[in-house]
Amino acid sequence: MYEERIKRSGMQGLITSAANAASFIKDGMVVASSGFTKAGDSKAVLKAFAALATTSPRKITLLTGASLGHGTDGTLTEAGAVHKRMPFQVDPVLRHAINEGSVLFLDQHLGESAELINENIIRPDVAIIEALLIEEDGSIVPTTSVGNTATFAAKAEKIIVEINVSVPLSLYGVHDIFSTGVWPDRKIIPITAAGTRIGTSAIPVDPEKIIAIVITETIDSPAAINERDDKTRSIAGHLLQFFEHEVKKGRLTNQLRPLQSGIGKVANAVLEGFIDGDFEHLTMYSEVLQDSTFNLIDAGKMDFASASSITVSQPCYTRLMTNFERYKPHIVLRPQDISNAAEVIRRLGVISINTAIEFDIYGNVNSTHIGGTKMMNGIGGSNDFARNAYLSVFVTQASSKNGAISHVVPMASHIDNSEHDVDIVVTDFGLADLRGLAPRERAKTIISNCADPLYKDLLKDYFLAASRKGGHTPHLLEEALSWHARMDITGSMQKETNSFA
Amino acid sequence: MYEERIKRSGMQGLITSAANAASFIKDGMVVASSGFTKAGDSKAVLKAFAALATTSPRKITLLTGASLGHGTDGTLTEAGAVHKRMPFQVDPVLRHAINEGSVLFLDQHLGESAELINENIIRPDVAIIEALLIEEDGSIVPTTSVGNTATFAAKAEKIIVEINVSVPLSLYGVHDIFSTGVWPDRKIIPITAAGTRIGTSAIPVDPEKIIAIVITETIDSPAAINERDDKTRSIAGHLLQFFEHEVKKGRLTNQLRPLQSGIGKVANAVLEGFIDGDFEHLTMYSEVLQDSTFNLIDAGKMDFASASSITVSQPCYTRLMTNFERYKPHIVLRPQDISNAAEVIRRLGVISINTAIEFDIYGNVNSTHIGGTKMMNGIGGSNDFARNAYLSVFVTQASSKNGAISHVVPMASHIDNSEHDVDIVVTDFGLADLRGLAPRERAKTIISNCADPLYKDLLKDYFLAASRKGGHTPHLLEEALSWHARMDITGSMQKETNSFA
Repeated sequence: MYEERIKRSGMQGLITSAANAASFIKDGMVVASSGFTKAGDSKAVLKAFAALATTSPRKITLLTGASLGHGTDGTLTEAGAVHKRMPFQVDPVLRHAINEGSVLFLDQHLGESAELINENIIRPDVAIIEALLIEEDGSIVPTTSVGNTATFAAKAEKIIVEINVSVPLSLYGVHDIFSTGVWPDRKIIPITAAGTRIGTSAIPVDPEKIIAIVITETIDSPAAINERDDKTRSIAGHLLQFFEHEVKKGRLTNQLRPLQSGIGKVANAVLEGFIDGDFEHLTMYSEVLQDSTFNLIDAGKMDFASASSITVSQPCYTRLMTNFERYKPHIVLRPQDISNAAEVIRRLGVISINTAIEFDIYGNVNSTHIGGTKMMNGIGGSNDFARNAYLSVFVTQASSKNGAISHVVPMASHIDNSEHDVDIVVTDFGLADLRGLAPRERAKTIISNCADPLYKDLLKDYFLAASRKGGHTPHLLEEALSWHARMDITGSMQKETNSFA
Repeated sequence: MYEERIKRSGMQGLITSAANAASFIKDGMVVASSGFTKAGDSKAVLKAFAALATTSPRKITLLTGASLGHGTDGTLTEAGAVHKRMPFQVDPVLRHAINEGSVLFLDQHLGESAELINENIIRPDVAIIEALLIEEDGSIVPTTSVGNTATFAAKAEKIIVEINVSVPLSLYGVHDIFSTGVWPDRKIIPITAAGTRIGTSAIPVDPEKIIAIVITETIDSPAAINERDDKTRSIAGHLLQFFEHEVKKGRLTNQLRPLQSGIGKVANAVLEGFIDGDFEHLTMYSEVLQDSTFNLIDAGKMDFASASSITVSQPCYTRLMTNFERYKPHIVLRPQDISNAAEVIRRLGVISINTAIEFDIYGNVNSTHIGGTKMMNGIGGSNDFARNAYLSVFVTQASSKNGAISHVVPMASHIDNSEHDVDIVVTDFGLADLRGLAPRERAKTIISNCADPLYKDLLKDYFLAASRKGGHTPHLLEEALSWHARMDITGSMQKETNSFA
């Protein structure tokens, strides 16, 4: 059995149950798991460890590529099994624990999240790796994501492999595993186009480190299907119009430059928008491939897409997995320190499109914290791309909750992407091109073009009063965060109106 | 005359006065000038233009590498000659104008400041370039800095050259001019060690663009001589002790990794500290070479130093210029998009040491704005290095003005280097190693190790009260910036004590 999936002779004897494999994980251990944007994550062993921890209390530090699917983070949290988590998460149960302080969370640039391990600050005791197959030499072919798995495999003391037999063998060859090596002898990353292949199809592994193999057949958690609404359609429209303008100006061609887009409905809506336009021979150099990528490939609009994972809806997953050979020549999956490498992003001149929680009138972007204190998901790859992109775009709706919250604020309550790294901001009301603008010019453009009319006068009043006080970046420190403080108390950023009127 | 300096035949006819050359600059033009950390700047034409503007009003947008010397920015500002300035400045007169809003300022990452020109967002009408000499093919050899000059020369419509005859011809060969080219065909930057040479000794120039040559003999403005005081000695001591600890841990060797250090007395003190220690075969991959670099070379402690400029004190300048052949094998001057390139900084694993105006209890760093509003100098290269370094260190005194100002605050009033990019913070009271720590852990470590005892209890109180309220990064939004607001009103961050006591 499993000869096609476990090619190394003798290794089939390591097949065991998830519960048995989980018992290798002891209290206080550092556990590193595959999984990036819910793709290619541990389906069995982490869940089994959570079950174990409920009866026999133990806590771990858990490292991944990015988010896990199947509510695994929540299950682990409910079992009291997580001491510290890094570098990213999207789970509501874990999020609550992070914000109440019962789980420590390290919110890291995804492209740098392997560094603490490379630098020997953190050493994983056990790595759990979902695999398509194990090669004869023990090297591991991953499934729908690469993430940090190559680093985990190299640095972990022991490795548990989850062979997922539901993933078709046709995925073989889609991965491109490359390591820069470690300091002081790091190598150049010789990628000069989204489609450049520089590595191998499998992750090198010392076979002696593999202590258990678990067979699974659970597929990845599906991405939500994001129907376009009026707001996302407007945001996408403004951005597409901007790209057309840049083509007319001669600064871009119809091919644009390699695209990166964050997860979510706006990013998907922008990419879907390319299906009808004049753009062609598009490429992506991104961290995750979503439905829109495969729709663009099908429409003949996208030539090639590079990322670290595939995270798609259930129908798209089925289409992809039953017909992977059709897509394989057009895509590649890389380690996240390569997909998100500053070096490559700058060299290729990536156009980066990410979602902001809020931005302020000077273009500083909050990507992580609600009200300046509560973690949402994490910075993810946003600054890996924004910091080095040719064009760094941030999108958000101008207001939400029936106007109770303005996403354009006097001062961002937390800053992940600073004014220095933000070229374009877009809301459903419009787009502000900040390139070449000083802070006072930025404020005028952002307020005019992007704010919800409900908040426009308030923002203008703030900016004018602050400007009278002076400064390169005018602010009234007593008022700068008052909108967030008000929201915290009254549930709305709007000033209370006279209730007797 | 000047055959050694103007090798292209016929070009000596372009020699003219600074006033004549300045008259080419018209109202509304974009002028790009050489000059980086006061080195290799325009000594004559910009000053002559300021004089012209006082009698015949005209305003320009002025781009440079970084700061200019000789009070040129102030003279231009007083002449009302500057509409917009980028990417960096250190001039008190210009700073005042920026903060009152009469001059617009674009505060840019120095490593990216050529991008707006490469992307054709801004097009320089005239470039002014200080030169050691002009080659037979018209290419220009710069003097004590390279900065953005190669980009300016390539993209400007016309070029004015200032031949500085005071700079010895022995500098010839110290420069390494390399261009990545423009998108979509940017090249790999093939630097794999601080000393790798990848380019040419001169900046390629279309000789037809050179419209005037001015002869000067003014030397660069000297750097201030920074005597070590008790605070800088303490900061340097903590950092050197940390490096020794990292060597003991096996994470670094006595060679460390290539060093980058910002301008100023703390950075100089840290580097000078290496003279007595066990560290050896040191290298630098930095943006500016200061006195300490040459002292380390003389002491046999530093093998090689790469930067974009040489900015030294008067005695060091004399020592260097009278004996340049001795230092030339140990140094190289590169364009600032190469000295500050993300790609190279990450590949080499640079140890980056920069000065903060303030940092907060979570490790967010303000590098630019006093009280969140008033520009000091600019972000400079701090984030080019901090974002991609192996180790990102920020230093500041714990308090200043007899304790009236704490440089460790509840929330930074402006954020240039976010928590995600900061590994180590140091004050005269101690060092906090933030690697692997979640925000609540960071706060405890920073308050314990780095705060001035005068403010320790206030910071603890803030953190505890905020923690009770909750959140991944606990804050009290109404109080977060109250220290700065108080300073603005009372001149001190300390709470008023009972004056009747």
